[in-house]
Amino acid sequence: MIVEEFFEDYRIGFSRRTMGRTITEADIVLHAGQTGDFFPHHMDAHWCATQDFKRRIAHGTLIFSVGIGMTASTINPRAMSYGYDRLRFVRPVFIGDTISVSATITEKRDHPKRKTHGIAVEAIEIRNQDAETVLVCEHLYLVERRTPAET
Amino acid sequence: MIVEEFFEDYRIGFSRRTMGRTITEADIVLHAGQTGDFFPHHMDAHWCATQDFKRRIAHGTLIFSVGIGMTASTINPRAMSYGYDRLRFVRPVFIGDTISVSATITEKRDHPKRKTHGIAVEAIEIRNQDAETVLVCEHLYLVERRTPAET
Amino acid sequence: MIVEEFFEDYRIGFSRRTMGRTITEADIVLHAGQTGDFFPHHMDAHWCATQDFKRRIAHGTLIFSVGIGMTASTINPRAMSYGYDRLRFVRPVFIGDTISVSATITEKRDHPKRKTHGIAVEAIEIRNQDAETVLVCEHLYLVERRTPAET
Amino acid sequence: MIVEEFFEDYRIGFSRRTMGRTITEADIVLHAGQTGDFFPHHMDAHWCATQDFKRRIAHGTLIFSVGIGMTASTINPRAMSYGYDRLRFVRPVFIGDTISVSATITEKRDHPKRKTHGIAVEAIEIRNQDAETVLVCEHLYLVERRTPAET
Amino acid sequence: MIVEEFFEDYRIGFSRRTMGRTITEADIVLHAGQTGDFFPHHMDAHWCATQDFKRRIAHGTLIFSVGIGMTASTINPRAMSYGYDRLRFVRPVFIGDTISVSATITEKRDHPKRKTHGIAVEAIEIRNQDAETVLVCEHLYLVERRTPAET
Amino acid sequence: MIVEEFFEDYRIGFSRRTMGRTITEADIVLHAGQTGDFFPHHMDAHWCATQDFKRRIAHGTLIFSVGIGMTASTINPRAMSYGYDRLRFVRPVFIGDTISVSATITEKRDHPKRKTHGIAVEAIEIRNQDAETVLVCEHLYLVERRTPAET
Repeated sequence: MIVEEFFEDYRIGFSRRTMGRTITEADIVLHAGQTGDFFPHHMDAHWCATQDFKRRIAHGTLIFSVGIGMTASTINPRAMSYGYDRLRFVRPVFIGDTISVSATITEKRDHPKRKTHGIAVEAIEIRNQDAETVLVCEHLYLVERRTPAET
Repeated sequence: MIVEEFFEDYRIGFSRRTMGRTITEADIVLHAGQTGDFFPHHMDAHWCATQDFKRRIAHGTLIFSVGIGMTASTINPRAMSYGYDRLRFVRPVFIGDTISVSATITEKRDHPKRKTHGIAVEAIEIRNQDAETVLVCEHLYLVERRTPAET
Repeated sequence: MIVEEFFEDYRIGFSRRTMGRTITEADIVLHAGQTGDFFPHHMDAHWCATQDFKRRIAHGTLIFSVGIGMTASTINPRAMSYGYDRLRFVRPVFIGDTISVSATITEKRDHPKRKTHGIAVEAIEIRNQDAETVLVCEHLYLVERRTPAET
Repeated sequence: MIVEEFFEDYRIGFSRRTMGRTITEADIVLHAGQTGDFFPHHMDAHWCATQDFKRRIAHGTLIFSVGIGMTASTINPRAMSYGYDRLRFVRPVFIGDTISVSATITEKRDHPKRKTHGIAVEAIEIRNQDAETVLVCEHLYLVERRTPAET
Repeated sequence: MIVEEFFEDYRIGFSRRTMGRTITEADIVLHAGQTGDFFPHHMDAHWCATQDFKRRIAHGTLIFSVGIGMTASTINPRAMSYGYDRLRFVRPVFIGDTISVSATITEKRDHPKRKTHGIAVEAIEIRNQDAETVLVCEHLYLVERRTPAET
Repeated sequence: MIVEEFFEDYRIGFSRRTMGRTITEADIVLHAGQTGDFFPHHMDAHWCATQDFKRRIAHGTLIFSVGIGMTASTINPRAMSYGYDRLRFVRPVFIGDTISVSATITEKRDHPKRKTHGIAVEAIEIRNQDAETVLVCEHLYLVERRTPAET
């Protein structure tokens, strides 16, 4: 779906929530295969059984990539992804956990250099099936202004 | 390879560099499949040809995940990934571009609460075959101290 | 996105259109891998060059599956997929072709046995980048009625 | 294997049966990834547990594609897939179910326009490990005639 | 297809030949992902361009696995794969090359210990589209005897 | 990691050992998809339950490819893979088994023709979590000599 929104249209506090997705053993195998990260924390069930966390753990970049992908539902031709701040792995995600994502606009900033654009900050929170937070970050969007900022 | 290093062992300025990896159309197809992000910027060559960038662009989360995976060569049993700061998409990556990663320890911080651990910051820079920076971020590691920090 | 609609809410003539997606060599390789169909029409570029169509052809089930997947954007808790009629492969799809899908409600029928449900027919048309039809079918949905049908 | 058969060679009642294949969680993850259909019916085990069917369900297009792929064992250079009729999802397929396919030639028709070809109809029936039918359809083949049809 | 054959039924000189399959960039990406071998010879087009062979090379284990898979067309319930001898990489395989396989029974041996079985040797030769040999090996099958061997 | 070693630098008895990796159902599904080998021994859990081994077995080429991939940790620009001898499948590998690999230089040979190179033999042994050998082979490397061999 395409929804055109200028920087002026973003409302602080606007919030959305995705459906859930279960993280499977296949996801971890595919992510190891895509990234080349075959660390035993993700790939060796036998060794993991000897560790504190007992079970294989999903890659942090897997949960981040899937969670961000789950929020990619609407295209805004006036916005582009600028980066991420304060990405933190709060709890491990295990095989069989089901994650869902909430995203809330928390801040609007001037761009340090461009008057034609602003930066919208969307707080991302990924939770598991027990409503525990597993990952947080801030997604920064570079958004075109309808009217350039004044000096 | 397993190399045990305590927080005290980390040296600011220590730098390493990965080999290269070409980002392929297959990588983008697989990443769309893993994340569910089928935005036309990544998947619709026909539409992309009408846009400023002319060609399909790799997902930001793909370049980030692959780049971080490329740095996952040595396991330190005393460290774990804590999160990322200031992740920025500096330039687009196109099909056929070859990326490599440099990683440099730039900072060591006390952990705000735990005296038993410190935070080591590794600056990550992903470049393409023309030595242009495409992505930067700071990778934070939570690292055990050999000796707890004093108050 | 979840949108609840009963059989009575379906409007004949309601139409929607997806964004585009380029069919890649990777898609064909993955589909062969999923289905086990490694026929040379899809997998042997050397042999294909000696045939009338000159190039590898996407599997019919690939174009069908991807096209139907592209229409799976909104969940209606009152409807479920019942089947398909008159699925026809009108033109081959080659590597690099970009397909998009239009879907139009064309008919509403009583269910032969259940008074609590009706059948809604959605005509699916998949086209390539030259607006040529490559695949058509009718997607049948079993949809709950708000009020059971009279005898 | 290549076996050349003209339309005249097709025998109504000719039947064949495939070996079995277990539908795995990985198949569903890969099919979601190929089609972009991440509906919770297939991907969210936690939500599925609250529904009537209790467990994740394989995509209809997955079972159809795999089942048809399982029948793609012999190449007939005189035939090509023309389309499908009356595709119906009779029962859900769950992770761990093992499907097999029977295929029987049930009808031979003149082509509405071409005298050089006929249409052979192969009834496809996919069953699970309990011999319950899960999917049926009619596969239509366009088959060259050894001798053109008379008017 | 299932064809039951005892050791006595194997005929030296019996030969079969597969259809062709084009080795794609996607195959190499998937094989790297499955095996964890991301060596630049397979993954870094930029670096390969500076080497003698100029282009990315398929993994030896990829060509071997695909070639052996291409010969896995008939199941003999009386035989099982015992191992391989004299596997040699004769020429590199590049992206876009089309391989096919010939397999010929060249030898029948007593099993060193079991009188109930013999060892059948099938010479495997994988060639590219220019009929150049790229890989050879001997595939050893452990095959049940109809009648145990005499002392 | 790149470590340059000439033939003269290889030491008989030098041994290394990899970390472990659990073989998953997803690995088998992906390997079937890559090779086209959908034999019921690997893919049909229902049929396997009626056989002596009771459970699905990993493809021999999967265990070989993964095991060899696990040893591909250091690049030696003076060596290349020449082939394999005496590859034997000693025990089946089941879903959930965790394999690790030991590799030991056991022999150094003159090359039959080239005085500029020698052949180094590395004995590969793949074991499961119970320290049982599942696969052995000899990996032959063609390695450049610092000084050509005398006649």
